[in-house]
Amino acid sequence: MFATMGALGLAPSAEAATRVPFQPLQPSDFRLRGRAAAKVVILGAGVAGLAAAYELGKAGYDCTVLEAQDRVGGRNRTLRGGDRLTEMNGTTQSVRFSDDVYFNAGPARIAQWMTTMDYCRELGVPLEVFTNSNAQAYIYNESAGMKAPVRWRTAKADVHGYISELLAKATDAGALDQRLTATDKERLLSFLSGFGAIGGRADGFAYKGTDRRGFTVDPGAGDVAGTQLGPVPSLSEVFASGVGRSFSFEFGYSQAMLMFQPVGGMDAIPRALAKAIGHGTIRTGAMVTRITALQDGVEVEYTRDGRTTVVKADYCIASLPPHILARIPHNLGADVQAALRTPVPASSGKIGLEYGNRWWENEEQIYGGITNTDLDLATIWYPSHGYHGRRGLVVGYYNFGANADAYAGLSHADRLRRALDQGAKIHGDRYRRDVVASASIAWTRQRHIEGAWISWPSRGAAYKLLNEPQGRVHFSGDWLSYEIAWQHGAFESARKVVTDLHQRVLKG
Amino acid sequence: MFATMGALGLAPSAEAATRVPFQPLQPSDFRLRGRAAAKVVILGAGVAGLAAAYELGKAGYDCTVLEAQDRVGGRNRTLRGGDRLTEMNGTTQSVRFSDDVYFNAGPARIAQWMTTMDYCRELGVPLEVFTNSNAQAYIYNESAGMKAPVRWRTAKADVHGYISELLAKATDAGALDQRLTATDKERLLSFLSGFGAIGGRADGFAYKGTDRRGFTVDPGAGDVAGTQLGPVPSLSEVFASGVGRSFSFEFGYSQAMLMFQPVGGMDAIPRALAKAIGHGTIRTGAMVTRITALQDGVEVEYTRDGRTTVVKADYCIASLPPHILARIPHNLGADVQAALRTPVPASSGKIGLEYGNRWWENEEQIYGGITNTDLDLATIWYPSHGYHGRRGLVVGYYNFGANADAYAGLSHADRLRRALDQGAKIHGDRYRRDVVASASIAWTRQRHIEGAWISWPSRGAAYKLLNEPQGRVHFSGDWLSYEIAWQHGAFESARKVVTDLHQRVLKG
Repeated sequence: MFATMGALGLAPSAEAATRVPFQPLQPSDFRLRGRAAAKVVILGAGVAGLAAAYELGKAGYDCTVLEAQDRVGGRNRTLRGGDRLTEMNGTTQSVRFSDDVYFNAGPARIAQWMTTMDYCRELGVPLEVFTNSNAQAYIYNESAGMKAPVRWRTAKADVHGYISELLAKATDAGALDQRLTATDKERLLSFLSGFGAIGGRADGFAYKGTDRRGFTVDPGAGDVAGTQLGPVPSLSEVFASGVGRSFSFEFGYSQAMLMFQPVGGMDAIPRALAKAIGHGTIRTGAMVTRITALQDGVEVEYTRDGRTTVVKADYCIASLPPHILARIPHNLGADVQAALRTPVPASSGKIGLEYGNRWWENEEQIYGGITNTDLDLATIWYPSHGYHGRRGLVVGYYNFGANADAYAGLSHADRLRRALDQGAKIHGDRYRRDVVASASIAWTRQRHIEGAWISWPSRGAAYKLLNEPQGRVHFSGDWLSYEIAWQHGAFESARKVVTDLHQRVLKG
Repeated sequence: MFATMGALGLAPSAEAATRVPFQPLQPSDFRLRGRAAAKVVILGAGVAGLAAAYELGKAGYDCTVLEAQDRVGGRNRTLRGGDRLTEMNGTTQSVRFSDDVYFNAGPARIAQWMTTMDYCRELGVPLEVFTNSNAQAYIYNESAGMKAPVRWRTAKADVHGYISELLAKATDAGALDQRLTATDKERLLSFLSGFGAIGGRADGFAYKGTDRRGFTVDPGAGDVAGTQLGPVPSLSEVFASGVGRSFSFEFGYSQAMLMFQPVGGMDAIPRALAKAIGHGTIRTGAMVTRITALQDGVEVEYTRDGRTTVVKADYCIASLPPHILARIPHNLGADVQAALRTPVPASSGKIGLEYGNRWWENEEQIYGGITNTDLDLATIWYPSHGYHGRRGLVVGYYNFGANADAYAGLSHADRLRRALDQGAKIHGDRYRRDVVASASIAWTRQRHIEGAWISWPSRGAAYKLLNEPQGRVHFSGDWLSYEIAWQHGAFESARKVVTDLHQRVLKG
């Protein structure tokens, strides 16, 4: 019976590591081979470009990183007081957050299994828990007719309760006898009893609520046994509310808790990479205007401070977004150009709301986590650090697609107004009070980036083509991985491309 | 239809607060009443005793806290290098943890809703997430025949998958038509599709595995799509393994994530209380030997450094464990004595294992959380702080009842050996390597405490009696609350008793 039981789990100890193997390059790789590290020009100082320069640097490659913006990190951007955030139409937000407040406008969470964790360890970037899910946060589906938000813990208690009741009834009535042995049935009923906190057979396995739902008065001392939250909605009401739709979010391989964030802001990662690479290697404000593949190398032309410069290198790693690369004149051929035009940029936006007090903690006992809604704001994020501090930053929306486009089309003042109106449906009027600063990003409107990430219609010929070097040009980025929109994808792609390039150099 | 929908959730904003109301005492309470703050002797400098002194001090009461141990905190104890841990039979462990390592031998986690959070805010005790559950940690039920541990994420994917398949089949076949309308059925099937990641009707709603289970090779760049963990065990195997028994743990009102811990050790709470009270108010090393109720006050006799002293006060708050109080001669009567003898002390133990490297993070990608087992160690806890550091402390067992008694009966060396042998079933032989220091606590063997907490056969007459003052003696402690074994219970009881006492003083 337990023949395949091992498959239930991962074998103990070291076999449990699941990372794609990677052998860092080292200077000694060149010994006895008569080869030497080459010169490499890297386009883009996002995570992929920086990681490629960092890894190549370990073996002594001579790297130059060209970055159009005046900062490194690409979409990994943390906004702080004093920053200016300009959109492609020229409008600029002056960010006025307090000193101890920051806003991760781009990536904000790291899963334990991701290569990003390895780089944090290697680079000495300290980590803390990112609170991706919290039983105290809310679910609110306005279109389902919900009149008030429900805490995740309450939604789970009710959904688990009713599905347990239903499955127990059907099992006990013999409706699943073709699928279940008598022993299976016994074990299943025992599981459902605990999973749903339901009654026994004599009660028809009925779900009638449980203290897992929460309390209106918490258990205390003396005769304060606690007042359980009620009344319990009916089965029809619970399924009509659609709260259960939110549950699978936290089962995902990339989203399941625990998740992590660098202490002090996500940009600690590109900062640490840039420091390790050496700032002399990175030219910011350098916009690439032409890529020319040569027989023995690559020429890259860029403009900086109004002056045009040409860099020649043995190899090029192009880590810009594909739709940006496609606009740069090159001689890599029509297939490459068509491939670069294949992925579709995606829209996403966020707003950071600094409040002058942490009302979500002090008044609602929500210490981090995410509220899920079907409103156009999609989600509200409570901060994962600075608990009990004097102030804090709530992410008022993190949305995608049409919702993100709708907010992108507004001025910042109107985005703020709309976000507060929508959020007040969850938190009441107090949501509008005590906002002391805010900033919003629309990734489709950020110059040199123009999208939150891309999606491939399929990972077909175009994906394969760009994952192979074209002449001496290699491509890199999360868009060339199976973890698009995650830094993990960028790191893995950088590792792949430096490995490919290095093997090529060693072979000569 | 949505008439009771509001009941699904908590109303927005301030109404969501569920704390038992508490009005802190203040000196101005005495104005116009012709009363003055009284003298109070408090027995025990655990959390309840300290909190009572702290709250009474706000209104100017003259408190003396008598504590038999040479430290404050009671069961709130954090062990560090240099500490000595003595058991009642005289054996002593010299704790040799490294400087940045600590071991919360008593309470270790705080729920967001608990009053403990309020005290952390008020006292300025910084908090961080306590990782009570983690998809990357394991479940291992040896007695069910499991041959290897399974990650929580994998167990959830399989259990949710199979129960969704079963319930979808039964629903679709009409087995639940008496309980479900056609609309209910449609919504339920839609929910189950996402909850279980199961096939559609044409596939018989079959669960065939999902990437939620995890990967043996993670998704990466280029053609590394990731290798999904497999094979998927059968429905019978999954239910036979009993992994689902662990799931309801994290639905509990007190145990659901997010949970919190003070930065640097749980004893930050009693330290902060003692500092706020003033150390001159607390007499450590003072063992109470007699309690005498008088007409106009209370006399308490204690011994300290071999000398006997008598303190006279207007009131007494007795916050020692009831089974310890029951051994102290007093004149409170036979009913009180019988009541003090009613609750039953519970056994619990923990071992802290300091490792010279964080193999659970570096090799198994487990950044915190708890492994649940049916072994005598019950649970293994991975640390919630110091991620990616040079070393860290794993709790090798936190167990109860007979399992705790079994370990309590061993020498520390034998506890360590047994814990490592058992833990190696989860983590393999590497679990035995690199242990650089360890300490174990058996709460039944701690003098002046003699139990992890107590349980009431029922909250009947004895519970009620001790929740009322007996003459001028008031009792306090988590054992007089509905949250026994939680600091919340101690804080709530302290708030109750100071409120009762103050009202009495104001009335005169």
